[in-house]
Amino acid sequence: MYLRNISVDCVIFGFHENELKVLLLQVKYAGKWALPGGFILKDEHMDDSANRILKDRTGLDNVYLRQFHVFSRPDRSTEAINRQYLKNMGHELKSSWLFERFVSVGYTALVDFTQVKATPDTLSSACEWFHIQNLPDLILDHAEILQTALKELQMNLNYHPIGYNLLPDKFTMPELQKLYETILNRKLDRRNFQRKILATGILKKLDDIKKGVAHKAPSYYKFDLKQYKNALKTGMGFEL
Amino acid sequence: MYLRNISVDCVIFGFHENELKVLLLQVKYAGKWALPGGFILKDEHMDDSANRILKDRTGLDNVYLRQFHVFSRPDRSTEAINRQYLKNMGHELKSSWLFERFVSVGYTALVDFTQVKATPDTLSSACEWFHIQNLPDLILDHAEILQTALKELQMNLNYHPIGYNLLPDKFTMPELQKLYETILNRKLDRRNFQRKILATGILKKLDDIKKGVAHKAPSYYKFDLKQYKNALKTGMGFEL
Repeated sequence: MYLRNISVDCVIFGFHENELKVLLLQVKYAGKWALPGGFILKDEHMDDSANRILKDRTGLDNVYLRQFHVFSRPDRSTEAINRQYLKNMGHELKSSWLFERFVSVGYTALVDFTQVKATPDTLSSACEWFHIQNLPDLILDHAEILQTALKELQMNLNYHPIGYNLLPDKFTMPELQKLYETILNRKLDRRNFQRKILATGILKKLDDIKKGVAHKAPSYYKFDLKQYKNALKTGMGFEL
Repeated sequence: MYLRNISVDCVIFGFHENELKVLLLQVKYAGKWALPGGFILKDEHMDDSANRILKDRTGLDNVYLRQFHVFSRPDRSTEAINRQYLKNMGHELKSSWLFERFVSVGYTALVDFTQVKATPDTLSSACEWFHIQNLPDLILDHAEILQTALKELQMNLNYHPIGYNLLPDKFTMPELQKLYETILNRKLDRRNFQRKILATGILKKLDDIKKGVAHKAPSYYKFDLKQYKNALKTGMGFEL
């Protein structure tokens, strides 16, 4: 039914109002947490596997998942976890393809965590969003997979636009800067940020300004979607 | 001995004096050409597999290989090629792990093709560098793997420095520009290129100028290795 020795793990980051979280499943009987992962059907494109696995395991649908790295340490084996799980279910197997080593392909996405509903599957006792600064114990090398995805997300800010679907349709420069600062987990210089992001050409300044702000009411911006999509495709220089 | 359903393919680009080539093996008995590829040993890290495979199949050693993408079309099968090969060797097998579907992890590198010696292994009738604009017929989806690697190499020019180990220790601005133009396969504006590449801070201007040039003798540059390595690690904005 499934390909041997290869698996998929998904690192789903969630952003909303200056919080960066990650979606984890609690492994039934084990207590530890895990990235949503699974296997590739014999006749399935791996990109479809990633979407199917994410949906089956967490309920999340229509998420744009992107490959980011393959993890292949020779000691990557879920044998102990799977043996325990099977034992708890009343099965004691001598050998199984589940006890072999798996090379795992990491997929990642960034969503607004208030816009999706996460539900655990039957293999898991919970499905929850964790603050990136406050993670629980993870199985196997899942902490390494998660941190690699986070570094890749941070590095990506240098090359590709971000924020569409994460910010309201119109937003202020401080709101956009906060998104970057939350992902990078550090403060950025206000004037440099504004100068550099405007130079990329992905923003349109709107005529209206934010109401209910006493002094120096900030202007609203929206994304220039044509430029934004183009920059997603070809990359853009934006050194932070 | 090997993991099932997963393989590694290497796209080795070679540059020298304004030529961009790629290293291919001719499949024995088949006539078509292929990227150097192979399988992962049961207890081997995949990065080590890639280096071992490249060395065993082409003789190339000490090449820095980098994962770039995983190819997973459900119809990726080397069954026909492997059956034919085994038949020519006097083996007719009903089934074999070699006839199953393989998900393949692409690795890539860029070397100076005059600095390495390529030698075919016993599975291949030839090992040759082909001009990127003049490729032979390739097996399977190897043309897609190659073009994906080329796009990734071109995109990478926006984010990371290039040229160390491909250019002489000291080089002129036109020589560096030619390297970029050769990879991108298009002309770049001389003044824009110079302004942007100098702004990255990865170059040091030397005091001496190129001799034997009648008018406007060009200055020599070398890479500032500290800045260069830093930009490799953290990325740099350099929109071409």
